[in-house]
Amino acid sequence: MSKKKKRISIFPYASRPSFKKPGTPPGTANHLGVQQMEKVELKLCKYHSSHADFTTLQKINDAEKALANPHNTWLDIRGLHDVEKLRPVWSYFKLHPLIQEDIVNTRQRPKMEIYSNCIFFVLQMPGYSQKDKSLHFEQISIILGPDYVLTFRETDADLFQPIEQRLQLEGGRLRTHGTDYLAYALIDTIVDHYFKTIHQLGDEIETAEDRLFKDEDQDENQLQQIHEIRRKVVQFHKAVWPLRNALASTGWDDTDLITEHTKLFLRDVYDHTIQVIEASESYREAALSLQDLYMSNMSNKMNEVMKVLTIIATIFIPLTFIAGIYGMNFNPETSPYNMPELSMYWGYPVALLGMAAIAIIMIVYFKRKGWL
Amino acid sequence: MSKKKKRISIFPYASRPSFKKPGTPPGTANHLGVQQMEKVELKLCKYHSSHADFTTLQKINDAEKALANPHNTWLDIRGLHDVEKLRPVWSYFKLHPLIQEDIVNTRQRPKMEIYSNCIFFVLQMPGYSQKDKSLHFEQISIILGPDYVLTFRETDADLFQPIEQRLQLEGGRLRTHGTDYLAYALIDTIVDHYFKTIHQLGDEIETAEDRLFKDEDQDENQLQQIHEIRRKVVQFHKAVWPLRNALASTGWDDTDLITEHTKLFLRDVYDHTIQVIEASESYREAALSLQDLYMSNMSNKMNEVMKVLTIIATIFIPLTFIAGIYGMNFNPETSPYNMPELSMYWGYPVALLGMAAIAIIMIVYFKRKGWL
Amino acid sequence: MSKKKKRISIFPYASRPSFKKPGTPPGTANHLGVQQMEKVELKLCKYHSSHADFTTLQKINDAEKALANPHNTWLDIRGLHDVEKLRPVWSYFKLHPLIQEDIVNTRQRPKMEIYSNCIFFVLQMPGYSQKDKSLHFEQISIILGPDYVLTFRETDADLFQPIEQRLQLEGGRLRTHGTDYLAYALIDTIVDHYFKTIHQLGDEIETAEDRLFKDEDQDENQLQQIHEIRRKVVQFHKAVWPLRNALASTGWDDTDLITEHTKLFLRDVYDHTIQVIEASESYREAALSLQDLYMSNMSNKMNEVMKVLTIIATIFIPLTFIAGIYGMNFNPETSPYNMPELSMYWGYPVALLGMAAIAIIMIVYFKRKGWL
Amino acid sequence: MSKKKKRISIFPYASRPSFKKPGTPPGTANHLGVQQMEKVELKLCKYHSSHADFTTLQKINDAEKALANPHNTWLDIRGLHDVEKLRPVWSYFKLHPLIQEDIVNTRQRPKMEIYSNCIFFVLQMPGYSQKDKSLHFEQISIILGPDYVLTFRETDADLFQPIEQRLQLEGGRLRTHGTDYLAYALIDTIVDHYFKTIHQLGDEIETAEDRLFKDEDQDENQLQQIHEIRRKVVQFHKAVWPLRNALASTGWDDTDLITEHTKLFLRDVYDHTIQVIEASESYREAALSLQDLYMSNMSNKMNEVMKVLTIIATIFIPLTFIAGIYGMNFNPETSPYNMPELSMYWGYPVALLGMAAIAIIMIVYFKRKGWL
Amino acid sequence: MSKKKKRISIFPYASRPSFKKPGTPPGTANHLGVQQMEKVELKLCKYHSSHADFTTLQKINDAEKALANPHNTWLDIRGLHDVEKLRPVWSYFKLHPLIQEDIVNTRQRPKMEIYSNCIFFVLQMPGYSQKDKSLHFEQISIILGPDYVLTFRETDADLFQPIEQRLQLEGGRLRTHGTDYLAYALIDTIVDHYFKTIHQLGDEIETAEDRLFKDEDQDENQLQQIHEIRRKVVQFHKAVWPLRNALASTGWDDTDLITEHTKLFLRDVYDHTIQVIEASESYREAALSLQDLYMSNMSNKMNEVMKVLTIIATIFIPLTFIAGIYGMNFNPETSPYNMPELSMYWGYPVALLGMAAIAIIMIVYFKRKGWL
Repeated sequence: MSKKKKRISIFPYASRPSFKKPGTPPGTANHLGVQQMEKVELKLCKYHSSHADFTTLQKINDAEKALANPHNTWLDIRGLHDVEKLRPVWSYFKLHPLIQEDIVNTRQRPKMEIYSNCIFFVLQMPGYSQKDKSLHFEQISIILGPDYVLTFRETDADLFQPIEQRLQLEGGRLRTHGTDYLAYALIDTIVDHYFKTIHQLGDEIETAEDRLFKDEDQDENQLQQIHEIRRKVVQFHKAVWPLRNALASTGWDDTDLITEHTKLFLRDVYDHTIQVIEASESYREAALSLQDLYMSNMSNKMNEVMKVLTIIATIFIPLTFIAGIYGMNFNPETSPYNMPELSMYWGYPVALLGMAAIAIIMIVYFKRKGWL
Repeated sequence: MSKKKKRISIFPYASRPSFKKPGTPPGTANHLGVQQMEKVELKLCKYHSSHADFTTLQKINDAEKALANPHNTWLDIRGLHDVEKLRPVWSYFKLHPLIQEDIVNTRQRPKMEIYSNCIFFVLQMPGYSQKDKSLHFEQISIILGPDYVLTFRETDADLFQPIEQRLQLEGGRLRTHGTDYLAYALIDTIVDHYFKTIHQLGDEIETAEDRLFKDEDQDENQLQQIHEIRRKVVQFHKAVWPLRNALASTGWDDTDLITEHTKLFLRDVYDHTIQVIEASESYREAALSLQDLYMSNMSNKMNEVMKVLTIIATIFIPLTFIAGIYGMNFNPETSPYNMPELSMYWGYPVALLGMAAIAIIMIVYFKRKGWL
Repeated sequence: MSKKKKRISIFPYASRPSFKKPGTPPGTANHLGVQQMEKVELKLCKYHSSHADFTTLQKINDAEKALANPHNTWLDIRGLHDVEKLRPVWSYFKLHPLIQEDIVNTRQRPKMEIYSNCIFFVLQMPGYSQKDKSLHFEQISIILGPDYVLTFRETDADLFQPIEQRLQLEGGRLRTHGTDYLAYALIDTIVDHYFKTIHQLGDEIETAEDRLFKDEDQDENQLQQIHEIRRKVVQFHKAVWPLRNALASTGWDDTDLITEHTKLFLRDVYDHTIQVIEASESYREAALSLQDLYMSNMSNKMNEVMKVLTIIATIFIPLTFIAGIYGMNFNPETSPYNMPELSMYWGYPVALLGMAAIAIIMIVYFKRKGWL
Repeated sequence: MSKKKKRISIFPYASRPSFKKPGTPPGTANHLGVQQMEKVELKLCKYHSSHADFTTLQKINDAEKALANPHNTWLDIRGLHDVEKLRPVWSYFKLHPLIQEDIVNTRQRPKMEIYSNCIFFVLQMPGYSQKDKSLHFEQISIILGPDYVLTFRETDADLFQPIEQRLQLEGGRLRTHGTDYLAYALIDTIVDHYFKTIHQLGDEIETAEDRLFKDEDQDENQLQQIHEIRRKVVQFHKAVWPLRNALASTGWDDTDLITEHTKLFLRDVYDHTIQVIEASESYREAALSLQDLYMSNMSNKMNEVMKVLTIIATIFIPLTFIAGIYGMNFNPETSPYNMPELSMYWGYPVALLGMAAIAIIMIVYFKRKGWL
Repeated sequence: MSKKKKRISIFPYASRPSFKKPGTPPGTANHLGVQQMEKVELKLCKYHSSHADFTTLQKINDAEKALANPHNTWLDIRGLHDVEKLRPVWSYFKLHPLIQEDIVNTRQRPKMEIYSNCIFFVLQMPGYSQKDKSLHFEQISIILGPDYVLTFRETDADLFQPIEQRLQLEGGRLRTHGTDYLAYALIDTIVDHYFKTIHQLGDEIETAEDRLFKDEDQDENQLQQIHEIRRKVVQFHKAVWPLRNALASTGWDDTDLITEHTKLFLRDVYDHTIQVIEASESYREAALSLQDLYMSNMSNKMNEVMKVLTIIATIFIPLTFIAGIYGMNFNPETSPYNMPELSMYWGYPVALLGMAAIAIIMIVYFKRKGWL
């Protein structure tokens, strides 16, 4: 009980929205987030059915010629801290100021917005660190235009490597279909990461549960751990929930950027999202059950303590009373009725045996009643 | 209290979604499930109004000629572990890659998806094992095309035998109507299994309730059993809930694979689904009531113990006080007021009787107040 | 506390859905219910604006001639156990097999289904038995065709007698309007029975509440009774809830069997249904309040017991301590400071008075604090 | 604790729906309510932009001529107990039988129904009696026809006097607009009464809260009072809730009885309704908070009692033990080790001081720990 | 425990709706609010793409000429207490009487209403005072006409200064777009204030949490503080919730006052609103967690107290019993079995050591069991 309480914040910092100074013009693109890389990197991929070329650029101007040719384009921008570097990209692709603002303000909810010249997806890629069991999210913005896909993110983690490999495969579906299918593949990869992350959360819940069934080490740290799990599951649920709207098919009829062929696949991703949401709801209940289990463990223990102590007191109180009786000072000399037991030959042993008998009878009775 | 706790997992393994490596191409068909059979078996049925032929095949090529004739076709594929054996079937019927993926990834939620050439139903057939009182689900995929029905499942349990028998009956409705009616009959059979399973869960709840009303064997195992029942009922509810959407009539107007005649019957199945959902909600409440009942039983017991013990203490405390009084050593020789009772002729008996009287008065008083 | 617990099932049998063997053909009409009558009875009424004739038949064939004439027809079938007797009726009116199945499977939820040749209402007539305070439901199926109304039910209780009487009244609205108005009148009668039943439930709640305010007879039976009331109110609510959908006006535009004139009246019935639903929600809360009241009564009692007992102990403990002091055996002969009180002239009386003073002070203090 | 419990019904009589005998024809107009006036009174107002005439009639026939002239008509009928007096009005204005039934059955939910020749509003005017702090509702039926407004109510309270005064004002908006604007003004007046009533409920809550913060008079009556407040707030909420639907604009496009001009004003009333509903939700929470506060007050008190008593016991138990030690009868004569303290010169004072020291140490310790 | 309770009202005054006397004509503009300024001030801004002029007026007539020229107009009215000063503005811009009423009745819910000649926004600007940690709201009414924007508010706080500065910037987007974009910029500023305010509430929650983790100062004031935080968060949530409807895009198609260009920006503000709502929901849960944490802290403390005290009693009760045994007065002279221990040489020391041993064994046992 006297262990040092580990401090766990009631809400994670991430749940506190960032804000700009009231009155600043909308579409003001300032990076609200953490700088993760030294330099902004642009990875350009031009592909059509027969080949796919990857180039790494420092700035967009280096690639004007490549961009001009009519093949499909995927431009993967890593690092959002240097807005000046991003601006040429934004103006080349004529992105709306509000898109610009959302790309660098990396605490957006997942959403899909249809603009006249493109579709803008904001997604949050979940990550789970095995080391400190922390859950974190990285915002990934995907912009789908008629013949290009732009992706913006803060780190250069190899999240999309499998996609790059599939693009390099000859005859793969990625190459032979348009950029909408590439956008789908990127979204699918992100949703798959939700599955991976929730699986890792599940492992953590199971470990906590195992610990809860070993009686010895029930302490307050355990409660803190359960709280932390619950917080993470709630955080995960909140992060995955808006995906439902972001990927629902309503509104796709307003745009011709997505083909019928790709819509079937996006419906499949939507289906996966529902699965993740349902799993995260199960996990939320599981985390709640963990807490209930801990609470009922603690309460049972407390009750048991009180019961045992009360029973000990209850057994000794009548015995003490009997001892009190024979501690009375009635004068046996003035009357034959005044405590004649005190002078009997077997008085003391009989008194002790009587007490023992009462104790035993009480213990047996309590046992029978199931109180012990 | 000291019995070994039986470990019950907080969530069943089944509630943890399986996941493929992020980035793997969609429509990649790998079997995610448990191999239940040695070999993949294909049972082919060709039928029209006047006859029905059943053949068991090892591979689809064996039956090309039979498939080519224009009668209605039902192909029942059992065993999903060997994807290579399934591929020829898929390509023969030109199934969409996403259908292929969902057939072998056997943790899908029940759903209905309309494709250009077919309707794809994923259902979960519930099963309840009397032996270990476990609840399990087997995914059954039904594909309805213009003149064929395909069913995919992992085991060769005789789930559809009644349907086969009805197909062999001359003049039965199954033969005289199209494949959409066969698909309906299969779905109806699966929904009927939900009824059977929930009935068995009901029996288990009643047994647990019977045990709860017999006072003697209230122990922690019982709580575990109640938790397990509750978990199963919740699991059942979660499994049956998506059926509501899967079988709702929205979207049937987009396809001409289902006739008006069959739509009436599918509306009836939908109605049954609502009944199962409502029953499962009642059961969920019943399981919750079981737990409340157990808790209130335990709490009543604890309260009764504490009350009885406190009353025992309360009765003896004044008596011990009186004994204490007469255990005082005031010197009767220095004053006639110093404990003259000690030397009285009836002193001791009167003291004892007084104590008995006080005890009796207290007991009577407590009884009157309803405290005993 | 030691009274025999009365066993109350956690869910009523009625909430467990009946089921047929999985795989049996749909539209298989087997009676699932309880035989209430010896023979199936058919009461035929032919009416038009100027007259109404009632005949009781044993089988439908007896009335072919009567049925053939173009007047409005009401056929009231009582007894559903003998399906063979019902079949001729079904085939005469060409009822869909699914209607047939639902008529004899008497655990249907209230619903309205529109078929091409008729509208099919399934309703549950509530009944409350004053004797054993039980709530039961009888399924009544109403089929509205272009010029006929069929009613199917298990018993021959005189539920529809007021309707029959109104039909016999010359110039009544029932006669002068079509069969849709008759169907409305029957539905209205059933909904009125919901009002009657919920009123009777209300009386039972008030009786239970009266008992709860008389302190003397608070025992566990009372809790059981409250549980039973709650269960009945929940059961009633569940039974009335689907009426909302069954009688909502959506879909009436798809049929021309109901005139604009009757639609106004059906809107009124719908309105009544909402009133019943709201009342049943109030009652559910009232039953919950009853339970809370009982619980808080019990808990207050327990707290009072514990408090009084603790106070008794608390008062005597210091007194016993003082008695213990003067029971010490310090030797007054070896020192003038060794318990000189014991030899004082007023020693014992002062000690007793001191104890009494302490007791009184404590009691007064506890009273002031409001603890007694 | 021993005070007489004041009986408060769990649900007010008003929440129990009235019902007619099942099977009675619909549109049967029997007064279900309480007679409030001796005679039925009809107050007729004929008005157009330049003048407004008020006449009080005993029966409708007295005013046929006045009614025949084409000016706007407002007929305010007070007293519903004498249906025979009302019938001529109903037939003059050709009111549908269902309207007739609802006018005299005064426990309707607020609603709006559109008929072919009129719009029928049922509203419940709330009232709060300062004397006995009771909440009551009076049903007011408003029928809006092309050039008339009818109002039906049970009492002749001067609810609509402000409207009458505004009608008599020359050039007021009421006179210059049609009867739909008059109907709006009446509805607006009723909704304003909701504001007034909820304000009075708020005063009652504040009084109860004040009392709760004065420690002295916490007793069970207070709980009853809080329960009563909560019941009233819930009742108010239930009464105001259906207004949302009754005044929502859906369906106004189906009628041309309401002009675009008046629709703007009705939208404003609807807005007020939402404000009342939100306020009543706040009040519901406030009443719940009151109850929580009371409960936590009671529980804190109980805990404090138990703690203080337990601490008293805990302090005296070790002292009593020490007194017990020196009450032992070991014979100092047989051994120098047998209780030599008893014969020491400072034995008794040291023992007493020791006890005092122990008591003080314990009290200081408990204080430090914050237990006292 | 004996500290003075700080009184916190259960609901803030602001949640009690104001009301006018029932029956007063609608559109009656009386100021319901608090006078914040001495005089009504009008700040007029005429702007087009190349310049922007600001003038401060005392009454509208002073600016008739300026208003007549065709440039865009922003009229910012500060002070609502003097309705007579406002009337000329209202009549100049032909505002509907209901708009007039809502402008000065400053307890409106946020809403958007479309009138034939303008769009009327009512918003509540949140403010948080660092000094007394209070949350308050100021109603700001924005009226968007074809070429003007009117803003009405009670104080002359410099809320819109950043907007004014941006208007004075040459080439800024504000100047080059229409008045709909100005209205958007004002709304955006207000929504940004919600972010700022919720951030300040978050700081307060964190401070309270910090205090909760320092064990020493857990007292009732803290609970009050937590209650107050919770109340503020709920109040904030209630204030922000209606924004969802007010800014949703439904209905914008009914007006041509907002261009497609501005609609994109308004969609962005709507998105921000959703973020604020979600944050406020997180905060509500956090405040609830704070309360739970406090409660569980208090309950743990109480349990610990009771446990320690019970253990002390339990240890001393057997010891007192033993002392009681040797305080019995059995006469050793009449029998060798009568308490021979009393005369043994080591009798007393052995008895004391035995007691010590029992105490130590019990303490060790309790420690092992984890009870101490």
